[in-house]
Formats: sequence, structure tokens, C-alpha cells
Amino acid sequence: MAYKCDLNRMSDKIKTFSKFGDAGHGGITRYSLSPEAHMAREEFVKRMEAIGAKIECDDVACMYATIEGSDPNAKRIVLGSHVDSVKNGGNYDGILGVMTGMEVLETIVAENIPHKHPVTAMIWTNEEGSLYPPAMMVSGIICNDYIPKELAVNFQYENMMKSTPMDESEFANFGEALAATKFKGPKENRISPDKYCAMFEAHLEQGPILEEAGNEVGAVQLVMGMFNYRVRFHGFTAHAGTFPMGKRHDALFAASTFLCEMHKRFDELNKGQEPEFVYTTGEIYVHPCIHTCIPDEAEFSLDVRHPDPELRKKVMGILKDMAKEEWCKCTCEIEEQWVRDTVYFDKDLVRFVEESMEESGMKWQKILSGAGHDAQFCAYMLPTTMIFTRTKDGLSHCEPEFVSDEDCTAGATAALGAVLKADKFYE
Amino acid sequence: MAYKCDLNRMSDKIKTFSKFGDAGHGGITRYSLSPEAHMAREEFVKRMEAIGAKIECDDVACMYATIEGSDPNAKRIVLGSHVDSVKNGGNYDGILGVMTGMEVLETIVAENIPHKHPVTAMIWTNEEGSLYPPAMMVSGIICNDYIPKELAVNFQYENMMKSTPMDESEFANFGEALAATKFKGPKENRISPDKYCAMFEAHLEQGPILEEAGNEVGAVQLVMGMFNYRVRFHGFTAHAGTFPMGKRHDALFAASTFLCEMHKRFDELNKGQEPEFVYTTGEIYVHPCIHTCIPDEAEFSLDVRHPDPELRKKVMGILKDMAKEEWCKCTCEIEEQWVRDTVYFDKDLVRFVEESMEESGMKWQKILSGAGHDAQFCAYMLPTTMIFTRTKDGLSHCEPEFVSDEDCTAGATAALGAVLKADKFYE
Repeated sequence: MAYKCDLNRMSDKIKTFSKFGDAGHGGITRYSLSPEAHMAREEFVKRMEAIGAKIECDDVACMYATIEGSDPNAKRIVLGSHVDSVKNGGNYDGILGVMTGMEVLETIVAENIPHKHPVTAMIWTNEEGSLYPPAMMVSGIICNDYIPKELAVNFQYENMMKSTPMDESEFANFGEALAATKFKGPKENRISPDKYCAMFEAHLEQGPILEEAGNEVGAVQLVMGMFNYRVRFHGFTAHAGTFPMGKRHDALFAASTFLCEMHKRFDELNKGQEPEFVYTTGEIYVHPCIHTCIPDEAEFSLDVRHPDPELRKKVMGILKDMAKEEWCKCTCEIEEQWVRDTVYFDKDLVRFVEESMEESGMKWQKILSGAGHDAQFCAYMLPTTMIFTRTKDGLSHCEPEFVSDEDCTAGATAALGAVLKADKFYE
Repeated sequence: MAYKCDLNRMSDKIKTFSKFGDAGHGGITRYSLSPEAHMAREEFVKRMEAIGAKIECDDVACMYATIEGSDPNAKRIVLGSHVDSVKNGGNYDGILGVMTGMEVLETIVAENIPHKHPVTAMIWTNEEGSLYPPAMMVSGIICNDYIPKELAVNFQYENMMKSTPMDESEFANFGEALAATKFKGPKENRISPDKYCAMFEAHLEQGPILEEAGNEVGAVQLVMGMFNYRVRFHGFTAHAGTFPMGKRHDALFAASTFLCEMHKRFDELNKGQEPEFVYTTGEIYVHPCIHTCIPDEAEFSLDVRHPDPELRKKVMGILKDMAKEEWCKCTCEIEEQWVRDTVYFDKDLVRFVEESMEESGMKWQKILSGAGHDAQFCAYMLPTTMIFTRTKDGLSHCEPEFVSDEDCTAGATAALGAVLKADKFYE
């Protein structure tokens, strides 16, 4: 019979951690290395020391709580995620994966479950990058030698130390915040392939797929590849009251026309066959942005995701063809911001997660990750995978973000089972 | 034979005034009551005193340079505009109307032209409202008892004194800037119907109509009525990577679809029959404006202008009908910002301007004003009209703004002729 994690203990953790950065209306703001994040780290230390785990920190303030296994030479199996949030975020994104790691260790100790490998609960520093961008900064730094060269350039240690705050902060940059934290240790404590053999990250789905299918948890297969572009239009400005319609080169009208046509062409290509195919125009800016001036410049962001590189290539082809056309007498220019290939999770670990879910009698399914996570960078360095939990209304990065205590516990139970299978699988 | 203004004298003024606030690349930044604007006012005083004009200031720093006429009891005829500019504006908007007033007075004195009424060159304070909003602030204050009640509320003296700067300023508000200027006098010096019988304002067209028709000047018939709305869309936000396309309520896609359809319906209504019909979406904002988030809110400005209230009403009807529909699963809400009726200029003065242009052998036409001017508020108080000059490429409110010295002089000659006709017409 499969071991199960404890609902009451998980509920207590959820309740406690939701206080650190409580914004007073259901959610939290808990920037990385802020006083609120330090409170969460203190609680992590307190609870992990209570079960006899050994606490270590590395030079980028990642934290590791480890319980020993029966083989002193075996590599560690780690379960990690982050304690930092976006501004006015929810009580689950990141912290759920940390609580899952803690719950797995607590269950192993409480139930005295035999295991060969040391098992570690881990906090990754600054995943959201909300105060100090970019997102996934510290997993980028740690995995820098393993991630694709074009991404690695963006995550070089020296550059990241200079990252300046996006909001109010007592520190001038990330390096200063790091220098001031007490949760700092030697670089040799970093997660690495010579000391670790597998990494699991539990996370809320952040989408509506599990909820709609009536499933509690999902076994994540991959993180979808994506590309991110800026799409710009150049016209010219003139006075709203004095310039005839027929002579205008209105950059916002051009951007709107392009955006509608882009939806049409992308949807025609896909014809609904690939439900994972998503594209988003989240930002838009116009210049001079005055109600009495025809805009001479307009720019929007375009984020496109799908696992299949062939489909992404076709979509990019449509975009490039469209950019060559004239739009409402304006010229169009596109600029690539970044391109990331699909990251496939470790086949053995994915299988262990699926078997664990099945054996525990959960309602589960295979699922893809559309969002980025530390696990995605870690997967270039170590066997890695993820577990998703059902998310109310698919909402996240906002205060109403919610996962039931039962589903959080189910995720932890799935992780525990997979950890024990990995424990047997690896030397 | 008609009197003519002097090209060389006009050229010298254009060259001189273009220095005050010279931004080093062809245009000027000359905020109202700034040191640069004070230099322009000093030059106005110097040149007007040189021809024996009497200088007066009122309590809102408007300036008046007056040469007496033969009848000591006759009311004044005034030619005025503003010396302030937008940020990185051009060398003509506003100042051309002040230079035109000066040139008319200089010509009358130089040619010793007989006239019954005193003739005044005037500077209206803070027309652009670039540093201290709103635009047309001081004509709004002075004409406050005459302009429609719903507009008058916005221009009450006490409120305007509290207007705070939009850019760097040594003063906390407009009232403090006014208290510090030396160009201040008693309130009884304000332009008013008991001392003034007619107001002329020369201005560059700010559009391409005269240039395309090959005409030097235009006799302005009216300032078009307009309405200004905010159009808002409410959807909900979700993660760009995790939320399926079919379930999205994307507020930016809704706004773009609405904007394209609005162009279609407005253009169908008009069918190109009314070339003066113009509508502009100059501003757009989305929330949260993050490239990885589907926008839950989008908002754009809509500025619609046409002389005919019936057409404006039909356009507003289309807008209101559209707002009742659902757009890409988002709701739409519209909010009126302001509505202004068409302001018809004084028929006699318009006729004098047209006759003056014709008699001087100029290439001219009737024209409408799409932009707002101090003359528009003044028209509620006094017989008022405007003269437009040909504008290169229709550009204004930018550094490349250009009117040839010859066209500036033609505008002044047209004004002089109209002033002399008014001089005969009024008691």
C-alpha cells in the first residue's frame, strides 16, 4: 500500500505560510529576500530542524534541508520550489512546492519510511524576479553551464548581481540584497549533478485543464517551447482635429488591424487541432499616447507557445510574412526577444510520478507546462520532473489563486511515491 | 489698393522669436510663464513700445499693446494668440498669431493708416496648458461667464490656480507661477465686451488642406464640435502559457476587434461624403501590461469631430450600440469625457476676412477648424474669427512645423485688411 502525506499537517503549513506577506485581502506580496520572504525561510528552518534535517545555504541563498538515507555514498533526491511571489500574488505559486518538499520529508520521518538516498527539501531563490528581474534568475545562474548558450548569456552571475529593483527596495541591486541576507553559504553547497541525482518540483497548474477534466493532479511531461517577439508599427503623428482620415498613417489602427488578422491566420493554421497552442499579446504601447494626437508608433508583445517546433516554425513564418505587408499605410517591424526550445522532463521520473499517482488511487492525467519554472533550467543539469495540482478557475499570479488542502496533499503524496521509486531506481 | 504687411519685418520677427526656447534641433519648448516665455514677452514689449503702443497686463498675465485710434470713445479691435508651446513644439503655433498682431500694428504705424478704433496686439496666457493643464486655460477663465455652463465649471479661476505642473517646474502650481511673474496687472485690464468690439486670431492650419489646394490662407468659418469618450473592455487575466485560447476573455483582443469594427461602421456611415469628419484613438492602455499575462482590462480614447450635430449624434449612436455588444467575451463600457458644440465665428468678421483675402489677390478658401483655440472661447464673449495659414505637410505640435515667411506675411495682410473693414463697420 502506498504511503500517504498528512492532510492536517499540510493544512497547517498552508495556513502558516500564507501569513508571510499577507496583503490583507486574501493573497500575499513576498518579494525574494524581502523581510516577508525571510519569515518564510525562518519557518522552513524551524520545521525542518524539528524533524532533524540538516540546513545548508549556498552562495545565491538557496536553502537545503536534508535528511540522511541508509547509504552514506548515495546522491541526494531533492524536492524544491520558491518562496517568493509576484506583487499581489496568491498563497500557492512557489510555496506549494516548498511545502510539498517539507511534507515529504516530514512523512518519511513520521512514518519512518526506509530510504537509501538522502532526501532534500529546497528553496530556490528569486524565481519570480518580481523585484529583481529576470524570472528564474537563480536557477539560471546555477544551471548556467548546462542551459543552451543563448539563454546562458542572460543569466551570468556578474550581470544578475547588478539587477536593479522594479519596485521600492532598501537595496540598490540583487547583489546587495544577497550580501545582506543571513541565508547565505558557500558556493559548494549549490545543487549540482555530483551531489544530486533527481529533482522534483510540485506546482499548481495555473490553468483550468485539471479542474475541467475532474482530475486532482497532473504528471508534467514537458515545458512547452516558445518564442517572444515585439511587433512595432511606424506611421506618423498629426493633430486629431485637423488631419483628414484618408491621409492618416495611424500606428494604433495598424496594430489593431494586424492583431485581428493575426488571430485569424493563426487560428486558420491550427483549426483548434492543437489545444496546447497558445499566443498572447499582453503589452501594448503607443506614442505619443495623447488623445488629440494620431499615434505615430505602436508596439505590442507577442508570446507564442507549443511543444512542437514544426508548428512554432509555421507560426513564426506567418508572423514574418505579415510583417512584410503594409498595415493601414504603416510599416511593420518585428524583433525577436527570446526563443526557448521545448524542455522534455526525464522519462524515468515522469513514469515514477505517473505510477505513484495511479497506485495512490488519484484522479490524474498527463499534462504539459505552458509556464516556465526552475525545473525547466534544472532539467538541463539533472533528471528532473514536475507535478501539477488542480487550480481553481485556472487563476494564478493573483490573490484569488486557490488549491484545496486536499489537492495540495494529493500532490505531496504523488511526490512521495515518486521519490521512493527514484530512491530504488538510482544507485 | 489694399495695404500690405512687410515680408522683411515679418521674417525678422519669426527669426527672433524662434530663439526663445530654441531646443537646438529646429523647434522650441516654451512653457507658459517660463523664462523662455518671459523672453518672448520682453521682445513683444520692446517692439511694441518702439512704435508707441501702450502696454498693459491683466491679473492672469495676458498682455495688451494698444495704438490709439481717432475716436477716443471707440472700443478696441484686438489681434491675439499665445506665446507658449507644447514640449518640443514648433516655431509657429501660437506665436504666429502674436507676431501677426504686432505686424498689423507696425504696418498701421509705418504706413500711417487712418483708423477710428484703437487696435491692440494681445498675448493670451497658457493656451497649450503643456506645463499647467488644461489647454485654453486662461481664455476659459476670462470668458468663464460666457461659455456654456458645463465647460465653465472646468475653468473656474480658483481651480485653475491650483493646476499642478506636468513637467519640471520651479513653482508648485499655476497660481504660484502667476504670482511670480512681472507681467501681471489689475483684473480690470482683462479683454471684455465693454472695451473690445472684435477679436482676430491668426494661426497655422495644422492640417494639409490649404497646402493641397494650393492656397496660402484660409478664412475660418467655425470650430468643429466634438465629443471625447473613454472606451473600456473588461475580461479576465490568466497566464499566457497555461490558459487555452478558447477560454480566454482577452481585453486587448476585444479592444482591437472593436476598434477595427468601429472604423468600418463609422466609414460606412460617412462614405467619404464629409471630409471634415475625423475620429482618433490616440491613447491605449492595458492592464496588467505584462507580456506573460492575458490583459483583463483595456481602454482607449476616442475623439470625434464634425461641424454637424446630427452627424455627431449618429456617430455617438453607433458607439453606444457597439458598447452594448459583447466583444471577444469581454464587456464594453463607454464614458463621456466632454462634449463641445460647434462654435460658429462672427459672420461679419468672417466676411471681412474673405473680402480682405480676395482684394489682396491671395489664393484663399473657406476652411473649418478641427483644433481648439482661444478664439473659440472668446467667440462666446465677443465677435471673433480666425485666419489660417498654409502648413507644410500639415504638421504641427512638433519641431518640423513650418509656415513660409511669405505665407505668414499673407496672413498678416489678410488680418490687416479685415481689421480696417471692422474699423469702418463698428461704431
